[in-house]
Amino acid sequence: MNNRIIKKRIKAIRRQLKKKQIDCLIVTKPANVTYTTSFSGDDSRALITKRQVYLLTDSRYTEQAKIECPCCKVIQRGDDLSETAAELVKKLKSVQTVAVEKSASLATFDELKRHFKGRLKTAANIIESARSVKDNAEITAVKAAARIAAQAFRKIQQHIKPGITENELAGILDFEIRKLGARSSFDTIVAFGSNASRPHHQPGSRKLKKNDTILIDFGVRYKSYCCDLTRCFTIGKKTTFYTKVYNAVREAQIAAIKAVKAGVEIRQVDAAARKVIAELSLPIYGHGTGHGLGIEVHEEPVISAKTKGKLKAGMVFTIEPAVYIPGKLGVRIEDDILVTKKGYRILAR
Amino acid sequence: MNNRIIKKRIKAIRRQLKKKQIDCLIVTKPANVTYTTSFSGDDSRALITKRQVYLLTDSRYTEQAKIECPCCKVIQRGDDLSETAAELVKKLKSVQTVAVEKSASLATFDELKRHFKGRLKTAANIIESARSVKDNAEITAVKAAARIAAQAFRKIQQHIKPGITENELAGILDFEIRKLGARSSFDTIVAFGSNASRPHHQPGSRKLKKNDTILIDFGVRYKSYCCDLTRCFTIGKKTTFYTKVYNAVREAQIAAIKAVKAGVEIRQVDAAARKVIAELSLPIYGHGTGHGLGIEVHEEPVISAKTKGKLKAGMVFTIEPAVYIPGKLGVRIEDDILVTKKGYRILAR
Repeated sequence: MNNRIIKKRIKAIRRQLKKKQIDCLIVTKPANVTYTTSFSGDDSRALITKRQVYLLTDSRYTEQAKIECPCCKVIQRGDDLSETAAELVKKLKSVQTVAVEKSASLATFDELKRHFKGRLKTAANIIESARSVKDNAEITAVKAAARIAAQAFRKIQQHIKPGITENELAGILDFEIRKLGARSSFDTIVAFGSNASRPHHQPGSRKLKKNDTILIDFGVRYKSYCCDLTRCFTIGKKTTFYTKVYNAVREAQIAAIKAVKAGVEIRQVDAAARKVIAELSLPIYGHGTGHGLGIEVHEEPVISAKTKGKLKAGMVFTIEPAVYIPGKLGVRIEDDILVTKKGYRILAR
Repeated sequence: MNNRIIKKRIKAIRRQLKKKQIDCLIVTKPANVTYTTSFSGDDSRALITKRQVYLLTDSRYTEQAKIECPCCKVIQRGDDLSETAAELVKKLKSVQTVAVEKSASLATFDELKRHFKGRLKTAANIIESARSVKDNAEITAVKAAARIAAQAFRKIQQHIKPGITENELAGILDFEIRKLGARSSFDTIVAFGSNASRPHHQPGSRKLKKNDTILIDFGVRYKSYCCDLTRCFTIGKKTTFYTKVYNAVREAQIAAIKAVKAGVEIRQVDAAARKVIAELSLPIYGHGTGHGLGIEVHEEPVISAKTKGKLKAGMVFTIEPAVYIPGKLGVRIEDDILVTKKGYRILAR
């Protein structure tokens, strides 16, 4: 991300901090650190004050951080991140009220409290909420990840032959993603036949049979941004029942996608998909209809019946209805959708 | 892990809970959930009471959990894990005091508090401390991971030729690990030439040149257990300086390994390695000399100058001293060591 974008993000976050009367926010969640600093490493924290953004990182990363984060003051931390953070805060004269992200651990909070005598409170969802609406650079990044996913998926087609194991196919896909300069954004799922009824099946040694159905759920992380896709197909003959289920899931997905538009209640998108499956008397899936994605492969908004709130233009999430029948089959179809003012755009297909 | 082992672990943890007057421990850390239940999935919690171990998981995992966790009562949770946990606790009549792991987030604690009216406290390191001393099944598991690592490493030798990129080599190694039925336990690091001076370098498009030095830091996760190894070498000619540095790091590593024995102060192991490097007037590395490994690739004990406490027989950790000279070179040598009563055993080499 270029400096202008990072500065814009920080400006928006500072507005929130001002509203909540927070002089300094201690950012502990790795994805939030990346969002506010561009830093792609691990085990680090950002401190956002009115005047400065500090990145506290260890000696493994200081060289990298200085290249990645021109908008930050990079501080090499000691063994104890909380101690370094507390010491820095003490030196900042204009800082009275410090907040820690609510995603931080109880242990982190206690350690900060031990080192820091001032007022320490918690702050929920400041950066997560900013992240749920993507800026143009982020949309471009998700699209770039999706392009790589499509390329990698095309490359594995030649390997999908009877005899290949789930594990080998997952490995080939991961390798193709890597050759394209990216990484898998989560553990690739390849499930043959009835294995697909477990939504998070781990690819094993099962070999592909001629008429087996295939489920592949995979994603790409490229320059810190993710996509997430699921495809179901077969290289042999489909049973009539499989075709029926497949069409139902596809129809459910289309119904949900068509419901997407800025201003629509999020739970209506979820309901649109479930309605189709219920009407066909097929079992309803237990997971949400989708999840936001960006720096994390699961982030806000959650597309479920329980989510309160409306869609905003710039939100990016998956739509992935499914039908699972244990011991028999599993079908899930997943694409990545961008909310626009007038409706939607499909980012990854 | 078989039932007998899980029961033994739970028995030891119940002893700690009794001492701390905890009727029910809510286990939130994924590795701790795996340790106490054998469950290998995600997004789940274990509740340990005097009588029962409950696994709270979602519909994606219930099928898998029933196979993996015969010692647990598997409960399908709703959207809100904390709500499900609180409701379960309410039903358990003998439970008065509930504790949440201190690694849980502030948000999780608040949610539990909201749903649960009884006494809620935090508990630190109960399971982490149990995990720091491995049982025989765990030692066998780390050794199995190490065997796969050695096999995979042998297989990539033929690919290490001028022209290959860091990224390709890392991808091939990951693929070989996968073909052996395992996974990389963290993002494989391949660094050519001076790139190795960044301890957590991300493999890029740099091509191997004839006399480049190569650093490979990789690990294997097999059946939930990890190993972690680093090798430095070249296929061309080494400079005299590189050889000097390499020998120094190797000597430092041997000194640290030789210091390992049950009862020895942990910081002495760290000091033994640093002393060798300091005496040769080479720059001292900024990270610890090692870290525990097991279900997580970084766990207790940390082998550093600041760690208080003594080595116990059954601890498993890396020894990985290094020398980094930015822009010039990086050498790190890492093996996995088991502490025994009389000294040590090398599990992965």
